[in-house]
Formats: sequence, structure tokens, C-alpha cells
Amino acid sequence: MQPLQIGLCGLGTVGQGVLSLLHANGASIARQAGRPIEIVRIASRTPKPAVVPAGVPFSTTIGDVVADPRVEVVVEAIGGVDSAALLFQQCIDARKHFVTANKALIATRGAQLLPAARRAGIFVGFEGAVAGGIPIIKALREGLAGNSINWIAGIINGTSNFILTEMAAGNDFAKALADAQALGYAEANPTFDVEGIDAAHKLAILATLAFGIRLDPDAVFTEGISRISIEDLDYSAALGYRIKHLGIARRTAAGIEMRVHPTLIPEQRLLAKVDGVMNAVVINSDAVGSSMYYGPGAGALPTASAVLADLIDIARGNSVDVPTDIGVNALPIAEVSTAYYLRIPAVDQPGVLAKVAQILSVNGISIEAVIQREHAIRSTGDVPWVPVIILTHRVIERSMDVAVAAIQNLKEVVHRITRIRVETLDEHA
Amino acid sequence: MQPLQIGLCGLGTVGQGVLSLLHANGASIARQAGRPIEIVRIASRTPKPAVVPAGVPFSTTIGDVVADPRVEVVVEAIGGVDSAALLFQQCIDARKHFVTANKALIATRGAQLLPAARRAGIFVGFEGAVAGGIPIIKALREGLAGNSINWIAGIINGTSNFILTEMAAGNDFAKALADAQALGYAEANPTFDVEGIDAAHKLAILATLAFGIRLDPDAVFTEGISRISIEDLDYSAALGYRIKHLGIARRTAAGIEMRVHPTLIPEQRLLAKVDGVMNAVVINSDAVGSSMYYGPGAGALPTASAVLADLIDIARGNSVDVPTDIGVNALPIAEVSTAYYLRIPAVDQPGVLAKVAQILSVNGISIEAVIQREHAIRSTGDVPWVPVIILTHRVIERSMDVAVAAIQNLKEVVHRITRIRVETLDEHA
Repeated sequence: MQPLQIGLCGLGTVGQGVLSLLHANGASIARQAGRPIEIVRIASRTPKPAVVPAGVPFSTTIGDVVADPRVEVVVEAIGGVDSAALLFQQCIDARKHFVTANKALIATRGAQLLPAARRAGIFVGFEGAVAGGIPIIKALREGLAGNSINWIAGIINGTSNFILTEMAAGNDFAKALADAQALGYAEANPTFDVEGIDAAHKLAILATLAFGIRLDPDAVFTEGISRISIEDLDYSAALGYRIKHLGIARRTAAGIEMRVHPTLIPEQRLLAKVDGVMNAVVINSDAVGSSMYYGPGAGALPTASAVLADLIDIARGNSVDVPTDIGVNALPIAEVSTAYYLRIPAVDQPGVLAKVAQILSVNGISIEAVIQREHAIRSTGDVPWVPVIILTHRVIERSMDVAVAAIQNLKEVVHRITRIRVETLDEHA
Repeated sequence: MQPLQIGLCGLGTVGQGVLSLLHANGASIARQAGRPIEIVRIASRTPKPAVVPAGVPFSTTIGDVVADPRVEVVVEAIGGVDSAALLFQQCIDARKHFVTANKALIATRGAQLLPAARRAGIFVGFEGAVAGGIPIIKALREGLAGNSINWIAGIINGTSNFILTEMAAGNDFAKALADAQALGYAEANPTFDVEGIDAAHKLAILATLAFGIRLDPDAVFTEGISRISIEDLDYSAALGYRIKHLGIARRTAAGIEMRVHPTLIPEQRLLAKVDGVMNAVVINSDAVGSSMYYGPGAGALPTASAVLADLIDIARGNSVDVPTDIGVNALPIAEVSTAYYLRIPAVDQPGVLAKVAQILSVNGISIEAVIQREHAIRSTGDVPWVPVIILTHRVIERSMDVAVAAIQNLKEVVHRITRIRVETLDEHA
């Protein structure tokens, strides 16, 4: 049968992964795809590297790949947003299928480009854009297509998860980040991972697939892990929780919650036990209840696996058509309801806890647990103070904003209050 | 667009689940399928129940569904093997697509019927046959299609997992089974679940999809949980392990291992933390490494979710074609290599451990750990004895057979030796 003819753009980690996976498993891939999948043209901006297979035309001009009449599918592995978006548009214009693992591209340009691709009748595959080697997009769009999704919660940035895992083992943030950088898990400038921007891109994609909300990473409330302390991890553990950096999307009557932030989750959850650079996503849906998908979220071969899954679908003519904008709206973070962990640095005097409790009560916030340890007393200048830890029941964020501002204004509160959201994330229902 | 017209056979748990899921999510299912999915004919052997939607023709003759010219896809929800196989054959003859969640049907008749269905050009969906609501078949055949699978290990029978979970909490087997029966998780005759037959059916299906081995549940080495004791769970825990009833399929140079048995796995594995009736499957493959899929393994709506995923694929014309027999052979259990846990009831005398260690050594088996607790001494008649617990390194089963027979023959060994296989199942690589 006629091979599916691929043009590969980019020979970095992902591009080389695709080449080597096709080389290793070409025969079984052909069997599963119903026909061979062949790279017929390669371009990368750097001069021809040794990895280009013999006989495959190579150029340093990306546009040559789209222009090649034999190329039916373009694999975008050049990275970046602007040049990848240009390539995507060229594929739409030339009516060539387009496969990418570029989450920033899909998240920030998908709202325009995905509908244009649909109108052009081309297949767009981006299985590798979220959670790398885990076939989470296929699970969501196809495996659970009969379900109405209630919520999604996932560890979708391996760098942040690695750092939190190291911190739970007693390393401070700076040391954990340095370790991540030394191991190649974090960039020299770690902002994109550590401040949650990468996770927000992925969450925006998942939310669009799950709920049909317009792709818009700017609508995702985003908070990173750089202000989490070992102390918070310790107090959380004492309360029976772990802190994970999660992306959460949830359907509510008032709109779709979309948020990325550190989150206390009960220690017995499987998600609480996902350590290091691994990713995992829990999907809660009406028919199935909770299901979870776990695996490596990055790396050359896991990403190549996702690209190949897309290519095999194209080779078989299999397509999905999940609407990317059915007109539902995002719920502002102020309207989101969660429980909270508060760490309040307060002077060690009688009556402080009563004042704090009074403010919470006035704002309709009930307390689930309190930790105040005398041995934790420290001092700033001459003032001895102690961290007061409070776990609350669920409350609307807007009310918590008011309460925290009022507590922060108490003269007994000597440093900035830390607040971290808490979710129960039932995995059995 | 023209609806996809379904004939539903059977109105038990699964049939009713399909009706109610279509009723609840019809609009979004139509959006994802590209057209409505409509039940146009229903049959069940019992007189017309109240759940039959108004206007849908109903009969008590299953054959009426296949004969209805409007029916394009038959959903088999009648259960059993012989009558389900007859229905499958009728669909092949009539060139109607066939969707089922019947693992016994696929496992025991698939070797004949799946190739016949392929020759007839019909789509056969059986996503619900393994791990219920978890889209594991889609993950294996499509999501990981670019990978070469190394091994699969899964908790694929919720009843056995529930019983082992209860036993780990201190209930004995009989009590745990009675609880499972009271909760509707186990049948009055629990043999099918508890002795591993159901899990062997599912493992045979997974092994065929992963490795292209001919479907044959009789080639699966099968051992149930009825001889596991609380004592074994306790000693395992002391050694840092949990006991789970697993289905394991592994590619080796000599053939495909296929086995279902109680297994010690390290307590830090996610799989070790999957409790109650939940299912989970770890797939280890060359490109991705380990990925895991977790969720409910049974129930009306989870199974209906899987059936709907198949129907949506059919509605979109999406198909897969994973070969069901590429000529690889099964590896006999005697040739399988695992580590072992041994519980040896031996008289409490000096020199017994030396004799045991000598026999192991002669058979090339090295010891990883030993537990012998004086306070565990008990007696049978006048003979005081003690359980000697040994954890070994990996060894070929054939050698262990010889060693265990020799140890059992020692006059100091007063009761039957318990042996349980041990697997490390790395989830990070």
C-alpha cells in the first residue's frame, strides 16, 4: 500500500526522537497504520546533521518541506511560537496535515488556527502537546467521548513536580531548582515551568477538549511554586496532605474553572504519590467517575510516541472533530470555591487566634483544623512570633480575599500570610 | 447528518447503562461522533421492560435485531459465550458492525471470530471487555501504537482486588469474600473471579493486542487468591511489599509470558496503592517507558462509556487493524523467571534454615531476605514450628519447582510451603 509521506521540520530533541522511533519500530508501525510511514523530506535551520537518513532530501529552509509535492503530512518540531504558527498556516494553505507537540503553539494560536485547519479539511494532531508520552488527548477526546466531563486535575509540568518532590525530601526551593537544572529538567531561566506558564498552556488545551471552551491560556489563573516553603510541605504532611502543583479545570453551573496553582491534596490519593518528573492526569466524568493516566511528561521518545500515534491515525484516515468553542465561559478565580491552607505569622500572644477566627467567621469561613506549635516560636527583631496554620472548609475565593486582607491588617500579624488552595479530588467516584 | 443506527441486544446492567448514557449525553455524543447515535431496535429475552424508550421496536427474539435492515451496528449485551458468539457470527454474515463488552466471548472465541470479522470488513469494538471504563484498549492499540511493548501488568479483576484490600486491613479471606458478595462485587459462586479465570480472559486479550499472539486464555498460567493468607500479607508488608492479584504479559526472546497470579510488588508502586474494586494497568514500552491507566473496572455506566467510545469510532468511520496472530508463541510458566516469596512451615530447630539455604543454593537460587520470628512459634500436635519466610532473587520457575519439592520433602517441614511470585515492575522506566 502507498506509504504515508511525511515532511519533518526540525531536528532537535523531538525531531530526532521521531526519526529514531520510526527507525526502531518501522515494521510494527506499518502494520498498525495499515501502510508504511516514511519521512520523505527534512528541514532544519542548522546545517545537515548526521541523523538525516541516507537518501532523504534535506534543506535548511523550512518552507521547502511544505512545498514538496510528495509531503502529505508536516511534523512541526522547530519549536517556538511565531515560526511554528507560520508553518501551521502554510500547511493550512497547502492543505497538508499538521502534527505538532508544541503546547505553546496550540495554546496561544489554536483559537485561530484550529478552526481554520478544520475549514481546510486537514487533520491536526497534537497528542504530544500535553503530558508527553501519556495518550491523554486520545483518552479525553475518544476514550471518554461518551462522557460529560466534570473535572480534570493533573500534574502536567514535570519540572515543578520534581522540585516539589525534592522539597518534600527536605531540600529548599533554591537547592531543588539547582538540582533540576543540573539534571536537565529545568531551563537556565526556569520561569516558564516554575511560574506555571507551561502548565497553563497545557491546562487550556485540556479544558478546550473537555468542555469546548475557547482556547485561551490567559483565562487560566496561574500561580507557580516559587513561594512554597519546606515549612508548608511539613505542615501539610502533618495535616495528612501533600502539596502538588496542579492544573485544574472544572465545569460549574456558572462557567468553567481553569487554574494552575500549588494545591494541598489528601496524601492517600494516587496523584499525591506521583513523584519526580512524572506526569499524571485525573479525569472525573459522569459515566466513568475518576480515571487516571500516568507516565513521562517529556523527553525525546515519549514525545515521539505521541507524534507517531497522530501519524498512525492520519495513515488510517481516522479523525476526531471536537468543537473548540461552543460558547461556554470561564469562571473568574474570585468566584471559584476551594478550601484553604493559611500560614499566618503572628505574635505569640493570647487572643490572636480568637481575632483570626472572628474574621474568618464574619466572612462565612469555617475552620477544619488549626496547628500552633509553641516550639515553632521564632523572632524578628524583638518580636517573638509563631506560624499559625489554619485549614478551612470550602469558601468562595472572593470571601477569602476579604478575610486574608483583614487578617493581614491585624497588628499581631508580622509577616505576609501564605495561602494555598486545598482540593479533595476523589479518585473513587 | 444521517444517524448511526444501533440495535441493542440485552437489557441487563450493560444494556441499560448504554440506554441511560445515550439519554444523558446524546447531544454531546452526536457532536463528538459527527452525527447522532440512535437506538433503532432492542431485543432481550425477558418481556419488555420499562426502560425501552418510547417508539423503539422491541422483541424477545435476539435475531430480530440483526435482521432489521435499519440496524448498522449491533451492541451485544446479552452475556454468556455461546449465544453471544452466535450473535457475533450472525453480524459477520449480515455485515453489521459488532460492539461488545463480553471478555469471555472475545477471549475464548476471538481467535476464530475476529479474523472472520476482519475478512467481512466489519468493525468489532470491545473496549469494555478489559478494565471497564478505562480506555485501555484504545491506549494500547492507538495511543501507544508507535511503541514496541515490553510488558503489561494490571489489576484487572476488581473482586480479587477488593478481597485483597480487605485482607490487608485484617479480614480473613472468608470474611472478605462474604463482604464482597454482600456489596454485589462477587457472585454467589465466586470461582470465576477469585480463581483468576476472568483475569486470564482479560490478560489474553491484552497480550494479543500488545504482542500479536494468538488469543488463547488456556495459554495463560492462572492462579487465584484463595490460598493467600493474612499472614502472607503481613510478612510481605514487613518486607516492604504489597500482594496484588496481577495479570502479567511480557515479551521475552523465547516467547510471550502470560500469567495471572498473586504477586508481591514494592509498596511504593502506584499499582500497590490501587485499592478496592478499582482497576489499573501499567504498560511498559520502548519509547514511553512505563505509563499507567487507572479507573473503575466494572459497572453499568463505566462499561457503557466504553461501548459508546466504540460506537463513536464507528460513527466517524475510524478503525484499527491490530493483527491478532503474527505467529509468536507463549512461554510456558516453567520457563518464566521471577523472584519468589516462600513461607516454609518448619520445626523450630537449629540447622533447618541451613538445609533450606543449601537446597536453594544447589538450584542456583540466591536469597535476598529472611524472616524468622521466634514469637511466631506455634505447634501442631506436639511439634513446635515456625514460618520461615524467604525472599529470593530472580530464578527460572523450573529451578524453583525442583527446590520447593526438595524443601517440602525435608522432614523438618511440617506443612505445605506457600510460594508467591515477586515482581519489581518499575514505573519510572
